[in-house]
Amino acid sequence: MQNTQTLVAQYLEAFNETDADRRRELLEALHTPDCTYTDPHVDLKGAAQIDGFIEQTQARFPGFTFTLGGPIDAHHNQTRFQWHAGPDDKPDTYVGFEVILTEDGRIRNVYGFMDAAPVA
Amino acid sequence: MQNTQTLVAQYLEAFNETDADRRRELLEALHTPDCTYTDPHVDLKGAAQIDGFIEQTQARFPGFTFTLGGPIDAHHNQTRFQWHAGPDDKPDTYVGFEVILTEDGRIRNVYGFMDAAPVA
Repeated sequence: MQNTQTLVAQYLEAFNETDADRRRELLEALHTPDCTYTDPHVDLKGAAQIDGFIEQTQARFPGFTFTLGGPIDAHHNQTRFQWHAGPDDKPDTYVGFEVILTEDGRIRNVYGFMDAAPVA
Repeated sequence: MQNTQTLVAQYLEAFNETDADRRRELLEALHTPDCTYTDPHVDLKGAAQIDGFIEQTQARFPGFTFTLGGPIDAHHNQTRFQWHAGPDDKPDTYVGFEVILTEDGRIRNVYGFMDAAPVA
């Protein structure tokens, strides 16, 4: 469970890392080579695509921080948790949820869903 | 989305089906040959193992019914929903949550978690 806590913390850290080299290094260390990330908006494969998606997300939402939104629940190689994203004065502007599958301690699949978003 | 609603309804129906032949037939039609089912307690592969697990569950909890516990949320090939299980006078004795991955309209993977259970 300690490993899972660390993995989720590093996963969120990658979404917040604005140094491109450090983010790419972190993502490659965190994920298996054939990793996937699928949320309502995107369906990505490999750390490079995930990196590009995070870069776009940071550009679209400057000043937003991703944080853990609740307890981490893990068993076998599957983990679920909620995340918050927003500016300092409204850190839960967006609320999402992920199930992550791991393989040898690295992220192989992310299955993401949205729990809350501002009304457009 | 209509297909997803039907798939989840049939999935819950399989948990409630006590006729062994009909249940096995339903499970085989619902799942891909290499399907998996993993919850906090079991890690299963193939419709036959899932069938055996349901049979054990029905024997352990006679009179329990599995029902949908809330809205179904689906995109790409991934679906999440909550389920309730219990007797008629307490239908949400157990509350669980699944993310299901589909392939060609059939269930390939079930990633299950528990949301609530009676205090032992």
